[in-house]
Amino acid sequence: MRGIDSDVNEYTQKRASLITAENALRFDAEAIAGATENEKRAAEIVDTLRVREVNEIWNASEGSGMLMHPDMGFLTVRGAIMNTELYRTIKKLPKGGLLRGHMNTMCDVEFIYRLALDYPAIHIRVGSRITPNAPLPLPEFKPLAPELALEYANAPLLTSADYTPGTWVSLGRARDGYSYGGPEAFDKWIIGLLAITDEPTKDDGTLDKTTAKFFKGYRVARGIVCYEPVLKRFFRRILLSLVEDGVCYAEIRTNFSHKMDMREDGSETFSHRDYLVLFAEAVQEIKYKMKSEGREDEFVGAKLIYCVYRTFNKQKLQWYLEDCIALKAEFPELIAGFDFLGPESRGNLIWDYVESLIWFRQEMKRRELDIPFLFLVGEPMQNEKKAESNLYDALLLGAKRIGHGVNLTKHPLLMQMAKEKGVAVEVCSISNELLGLTSLIHHPLTTLLNYGVPVVLCPDNPASYGYAGLSFDFFQAMVCSNKSNLLSLKQLAKQSLQYSCLNSEEMKSAHEAWERRWHSFVDGIVGGQLESEN
Amino acid sequence: MRGIDSDVNEYTQKRASLITAENALRFDAEAIAGATENEKRAAEIVDTLRVREVNEIWNASEGSGMLMHPDMGFLTVRGAIMNTELYRTIKKLPKGGLLRGHMNTMCDVEFIYRLALDYPAIHIRVGSRITPNAPLPLPEFKPLAPELALEYANAPLLTSADYTPGTWVSLGRARDGYSYGGPEAFDKWIIGLLAITDEPTKDDGTLDKTTAKFFKGYRVARGIVCYEPVLKRFFRRILLSLVEDGVCYAEIRTNFSHKMDMREDGSETFSHRDYLVLFAEAVQEIKYKMKSEGREDEFVGAKLIYCVYRTFNKQKLQWYLEDCIALKAEFPELIAGFDFLGPESRGNLIWDYVESLIWFRQEMKRRELDIPFLFLVGEPMQNEKKAESNLYDALLLGAKRIGHGVNLTKHPLLMQMAKEKGVAVEVCSISNELLGLTSLIHHPLTTLLNYGVPVVLCPDNPASYGYAGLSFDFFQAMVCSNKSNLLSLKQLAKQSLQYSCLNSEEMKSAHEAWERRWHSFVDGIVGGQLESEN
Repeated sequence: MRGIDSDVNEYTQKRASLITAENALRFDAEAIAGATENEKRAAEIVDTLRVREVNEIWNASEGSGMLMHPDMGFLTVRGAIMNTELYRTIKKLPKGGLLRGHMNTMCDVEFIYRLALDYPAIHIRVGSRITPNAPLPLPEFKPLAPELALEYANAPLLTSADYTPGTWVSLGRARDGYSYGGPEAFDKWIIGLLAITDEPTKDDGTLDKTTAKFFKGYRVARGIVCYEPVLKRFFRRILLSLVEDGVCYAEIRTNFSHKMDMREDGSETFSHRDYLVLFAEAVQEIKYKMKSEGREDEFVGAKLIYCVYRTFNKQKLQWYLEDCIALKAEFPELIAGFDFLGPESRGNLIWDYVESLIWFRQEMKRRELDIPFLFLVGEPMQNEKKAESNLYDALLLGAKRIGHGVNLTKHPLLMQMAKEKGVAVEVCSISNELLGLTSLIHHPLTTLLNYGVPVVLCPDNPASYGYAGLSFDFFQAMVCSNKSNLLSLKQLAKQSLQYSCLNSEEMKSAHEAWERRWHSFVDGIVGGQLESEN
Repeated sequence: MRGIDSDVNEYTQKRASLITAENALRFDAEAIAGATENEKRAAEIVDTLRVREVNEIWNASEGSGMLMHPDMGFLTVRGAIMNTELYRTIKKLPKGGLLRGHMNTMCDVEFIYRLALDYPAIHIRVGSRITPNAPLPLPEFKPLAPELALEYANAPLLTSADYTPGTWVSLGRARDGYSYGGPEAFDKWIIGLLAITDEPTKDDGTLDKTTAKFFKGYRVARGIVCYEPVLKRFFRRILLSLVEDGVCYAEIRTNFSHKMDMREDGSETFSHRDYLVLFAEAVQEIKYKMKSEGREDEFVGAKLIYCVYRTFNKQKLQWYLEDCIALKAEFPELIAGFDFLGPESRGNLIWDYVESLIWFRQEMKRRELDIPFLFLVGEPMQNEKKAESNLYDALLLGAKRIGHGVNLTKHPLLMQMAKEKGVAVEVCSISNELLGLTSLIHHPLTTLLNYGVPVVLCPDNPASYGYAGLSFDFFQAMVCSNKSNLLSLKQLAKQSLQYSCLNSEEMKSAHEAWERRWHSFVDGIVGGQLESEN
């Protein structure tokens, strides 16, 4: 075997160079190269913890009949994840901004339901009388103006033989008089509608069912939170839940497809503008609260992303584009960007709106406004043609970020464009999994990270999946690739501010606040470890 | 809206250029650019057929309670696929070479079982007596030498109260005297072991079960086909089934991990060399047969890929590497390449064998032999670290092809290397789906094709999945991406010869034969269409 040794040496060096070259392309290359001694130490501690928990928790489940992998279905492993020290560590990590979350699916569902019960204006109706043996119908919720509520004050209950389908009943009465199990069964029914409680199965039909279930919950929530007094407390709750999870900033997608919501007095004069004002008040309130507690670094603000359905015709869209511009002109610090709502496979293509969107860009330029496109594109796996078309348009129309984008990795030039132009992908791996799109191990997240395409981790509809904030998303990003460590999470947190729609001044102070918290987090890990070693 | 029109025009042109530029990177760009008028016409006819069947077959199933997508689980849709005109068309397409298929899972399972019944030497034993209420034990098969068979001639039957676990019973006796349902139930039991009949479910445990089931079937088959007289007919059947499916060439992975098989006279002197000679005879026989029927273009030959388990220690591996070189030296036209067998997640890394493999390369160079590495690497999704390590080594050690490689797309530099060096990926989408690795819509096949990384479609273990040849694999490659058309399949067929281990002379004549058949296939489509239009 003469010559083998030198050949093996040469090979070993070539191999190491190749791996180094690939790692250099990754999104976290700079964070790893520039790590402080303290950061390196903290990353080692967390790696050790991770390996220990792989052996003590995940691998230990093998053969126990309760085989668990952290990358299994989220609802299946959520409990096990919460019991890990790695999760508790990540919970404390300052996670920066949450850039993709839908307003109506960001507030914990029991809280929404309690809000509904607090206001006698909230009414419920069903399309068919509730009987013990038939499946429960889908209820509709709506705040009724006092005079209208009076008309329905004595309406027969949902379970009464006299109930006329489609008749409103006040929520409190409907609940108290629920004959099939009383208020407890009623509560279970409504709360059960608001969240997804089962993993999707492999078969396609059920997949559609999961999505349908999701939209049902969305509509039920919308019937409650379109009411001004509910909204105030709802906003507050969402923002506080973010702070609690280490999220200091949010850009929340809001459905502006309806022209207005309802005031406390029952009048339908609660406009988009009023919604913005109310939201701004809630943001300000939380800021004051945090400041008064000496915790101002923990919350730097929140903005709204103006969204409309992608089923609108061009004329209808035009009204909303103009509305969006008008609101941005009045509240530049509140409107983060623009997006379309609803499943890509059933809506219009972005291409169908291209003239309107080019007009919108021109108009923004003319008025010196900045409302970046933050398009949900390239999501469906089974309708690649639409996903593909939308991906091309998002990138060519200069989108600042793209939502989901699970099909992006199929496109060599679009990947390159996204990387070069700094278009971030809003990755929602838990949401994608629970809506049956793709499981974590098949998610393109690792590919995006390895190619250095900017990624921001997002929960999409956290309340529908039973959580708030970003801790689970950060946890999954760590466990889905052996290349990701604590410094990778640092970079993901930084990117969540870097690719946000904060203006340069806001961005600067957000980064500074985040840096302070990051260093204290790292110190905490290093300090904590030293203690437990003693 | 002044200026809109020109902006929209400019945008439209930019968009078209981008899409053209991406398509130019695809593997089929040249085939599409260089298509003859007849090929274009045929591609249009097939596209029309495809769209018609999407509407009339696939979409029509929506709401019928039997929702079907051609990219659902293979066993679920196989029947529906076979009923399409698209499948029948693809069946006739000359598909070139089959470059990844395991010998023991390439022959239809009922035929193997019938072979076993034909030879009294074949015996069966179980590890526990068969009783009506316990699950059926896993049987072992083995040909026994006549003198040994005599010893067991009157052994109690598998279902007898006197059966001693581990005792051999001749297969015919065991079947005739099977007390729980007679020969029919016995046949069902054994045939059921040889193939996979259920889709894997989402849950991991069952996934392991599918793989375990697959290996059980593999072992049962191996116990039958290690017998010389069985082998002759077995080889013949495999090669004829390929011809029947439009496959003109094959490189079949053969497990050489055992040192020898058994002769008809019961002696264990049937060596690796003897196996090769027998296989060469079968190949020659089919060549003569095809020639005598004036169909010589339909079969150009077959080679074996020398495979050993990746669990061997280095000393043991050395014996096999030397054996492989000796066989190649004697039968240069029969040994196509070298590969490791068995699941990556449980075996050694290629890195662990790097010295031996570098020695092997040097030795080949010295002896002027060419035994390319055709490594199964980058397969497991859940053990990315091993998959990653093996991918690096396969590409750095100069593998000619890589098997499975589902993790390759995660690696930007490895993708580039594979494209530049012309390392083909043996894509086995049906096998990957049925072994629970990834479903068709999550398979990286589209990504590989879009990036222009060479791909060869392979069935891996077609008999375990109830088919032969490549028609289903070609069908899936077409339906999994809207960008793939008949010319894409042409390119895939050509690549299956281009990336084979045929020597330059063989390659030239294989391509010529394939071209003749391709043109006649295209003429058939164009001619057939004209007929039906009259």
